[in-house]
Amino acid sequence: MQTLWDDRYALRTNSMKGSAIRELLKITQMPDVISFAGGMPAPEIFPVEEFKEACIRVLDQHGPEALQYGTTDGYLPLREMISRHSNQYGIKVTAENIMITSGSQQALDLLGKIFINPGDRILVESPTYLGALQAWNTYNAQYVTVPVDEDGMQVDKLEMALRSGPKFMYVLPNFQNPSGGTLSLERRHKLVELADQYGVPIVEDDPYGQLRFEGKHIPTLEYLDDQSHGNNASYHGNVIYLSTFSKILAPGIRLAWVVATPEIIQKLVMAKQGADLHTSTFNQIVAFEVGRRGFIDEHIKKINEVYRERRDIMLEELEKNMPEGVKWTRPLGGLFLWASLPEQCNTKDLFVKAVERKVAFVPGTSFFANGGGHNTMRLNFSNAKPEMIRLGIQRLANTIKESIC
Amino acid sequence: MQTLWDDRYALRTNSMKGSAIRELLKITQMPDVISFAGGMPAPEIFPVEEFKEACIRVLDQHGPEALQYGTTDGYLPLREMISRHSNQYGIKVTAENIMITSGSQQALDLLGKIFINPGDRILVESPTYLGALQAWNTYNAQYVTVPVDEDGMQVDKLEMALRSGPKFMYVLPNFQNPSGGTLSLERRHKLVELADQYGVPIVEDDPYGQLRFEGKHIPTLEYLDDQSHGNNASYHGNVIYLSTFSKILAPGIRLAWVVATPEIIQKLVMAKQGADLHTSTFNQIVAFEVGRRGFIDEHIKKINEVYRERRDIMLEELEKNMPEGVKWTRPLGGLFLWASLPEQCNTKDLFVKAVERKVAFVPGTSFFANGGGHNTMRLNFSNAKPEMIRLGIQRLANTIKESIC
Repeated sequence: MQTLWDDRYALRTNSMKGSAIRELLKITQMPDVISFAGGMPAPEIFPVEEFKEACIRVLDQHGPEALQYGTTDGYLPLREMISRHSNQYGIKVTAENIMITSGSQQALDLLGKIFINPGDRILVESPTYLGALQAWNTYNAQYVTVPVDEDGMQVDKLEMALRSGPKFMYVLPNFQNPSGGTLSLERRHKLVELADQYGVPIVEDDPYGQLRFEGKHIPTLEYLDDQSHGNNASYHGNVIYLSTFSKILAPGIRLAWVVATPEIIQKLVMAKQGADLHTSTFNQIVAFEVGRRGFIDEHIKKINEVYRERRDIMLEELEKNMPEGVKWTRPLGGLFLWASLPEQCNTKDLFVKAVERKVAFVPGTSFFANGGGHNTMRLNFSNAKPEMIRLGIQRLANTIKESIC
Repeated sequence: MQTLWDDRYALRTNSMKGSAIRELLKITQMPDVISFAGGMPAPEIFPVEEFKEACIRVLDQHGPEALQYGTTDGYLPLREMISRHSNQYGIKVTAENIMITSGSQQALDLLGKIFINPGDRILVESPTYLGALQAWNTYNAQYVTVPVDEDGMQVDKLEMALRSGPKFMYVLPNFQNPSGGTLSLERRHKLVELADQYGVPIVEDDPYGQLRFEGKHIPTLEYLDDQSHGNNASYHGNVIYLSTFSKILAPGIRLAWVVATPEIIQKLVMAKQGADLHTSTFNQIVAFEVGRRGFIDEHIKKINEVYRERRDIMLEELEKNMPEGVKWTRPLGGLFLWASLPEQCNTKDLFVKAVERKVAFVPGTSFFANGGGHNTMRLNFSNAKPEMIRLGIQRLANTIKESIC
């Protein structure tokens, strides 16, 4: 059908591709398909009752305020709660360092909006979170990549990438999406030092940091950067830090936050005014009510118990069922692990066969900014229940064994 | 404080200005100030109890679904409800013509993202909604303007503006923000015809259409365009139509929608994936629960009673108190009226004096894409209570009388 809008699309729409994952999710939402494809939390442990109580309290006590327009930077008590939470991890911020966003995806978009000119190079891990690529492709970013392994970004390969003059680097240090790897403390120190030396600032994306099943918390890049600048309480300079309530409370409320200097927060606020005015007042006050009495820390323990069990079951079934030549990571937390098949395998082709067998994953190529990963896949272990994980991995192993790869 | 982020801002940040209104709102939120500045609904008539019941029902019956990730285009039953609502006004759409956005502001941003290349001319009314300018400035849009009066855009001046080849035109036909004017039926026909003739598509922004206090509903541009193309049920071609729950339910839930062809909806969905993944599942299901039993139509009657009374009181006090030379519009609905002072007056200077007298408005210049309106102001009548409106207009009249303009 012809309309006057045809052929009027902006040039940037050429670089917009729908998320492979979200397209796949449609397929994998068919009944009977056991999906390791999405990045969805386990819905059966969402704190539904706590939300209900909070909604009642908020509407009884703050109804008109909760349903009214709010400020662009976000609900002050929530920003204060987040700053107290950050302080527990040594990040000495106040509310003026924090802006609430409509999910971390919006933070990525707004960072693109205020920092990326067409053709700017952004340094990303390879593989990396594809939502970041999707956000920044619309600003016509180019990418330089540094490979990751189970200890995160291979910092010995970072220096060469830094020499190409990227505008900033984007790092997921904890239980990386998609690889499951965690940047070691030693590499964190080296990364912060090199960033400073080459004058390249850092976006640290940390949606999963609290979801650690074993081992000890490793300081954030934000913290290490502050330390290396004398831990000046008002600094928080070279690192913009992102985190979210999506994985520790619920993604359906679309609440995340940015930690940065007040100057950057001001620019982000201006960009957000034009993007969506502000994030839902109601959801912010409800999240504050759910979280204010220390509930989130308690809830995280429960999440980690459930996810650790699921990770263990997935690892066990992989060990039992996968043919030789298939390798996978052993993440210490988070939602994902990463599997590599023999070189001759193509996981995009395999995906079709797997869905026929009623199991799904995300082919790895989606996560590579500049190509690669044809024989890799991301497996989510947070969403499916234990028995489904067993059955799904068996189906997947059978698919791999049968395909001539 | 120096950080590596300094001087790394994108060129487009130069064109980002914080909304004058939102900056002013901070001043005007001081206690004692009677504010006619914002565009806020009357919070005392928000349907708080209905929201509470809906939250309880949603969390009892759909808890895990409501707190989980959702689809980018939006919650299907809500999109179906919106399409039924549209059908009442002759717009024959289905859910595939509708995408949910995080407030109408997001729709404006996403339209900028998929349609505006740097330097593209957009045809806007003069004055127009400043949030649209704010959204599109970040895409480096240029503007051509057509003046409005109480009957909306002066279509006899439209043709010349269309000759400059704008990418699209942006029109607020009902109770326009900021002027309060409503595009007459005759002008609507002419506008749709000229748009077709010059091949310029239309973005119709209709946040206030339901808030009519008197007179009869006038068909939307969307409807008239469909009619002029033989009312082909699958057409909905040249007009992209925007509306919102912000004014008929509550703005704090950040829920609005776009009506367009499935092709445009698909592009918007891709842009939205990169911008915020999707709009809060919880809020969408709650809004559906609040609205599903015909509640919204009932609630609109109540809103219109309250707002009509407030408009009448504001008009009455303006009549009683304003000195000669001050003129104002008499809107048939919506939230705003528009006042013009004698030529020699500057409402930005007047604003400072007004705030000293504890009354606030928005100086008109903010609403002009290419300058103008130094002697105009926007007055909101939906937010303040009747007695405050009387007192506020008296204060404003005294300020004007005292100032040497």
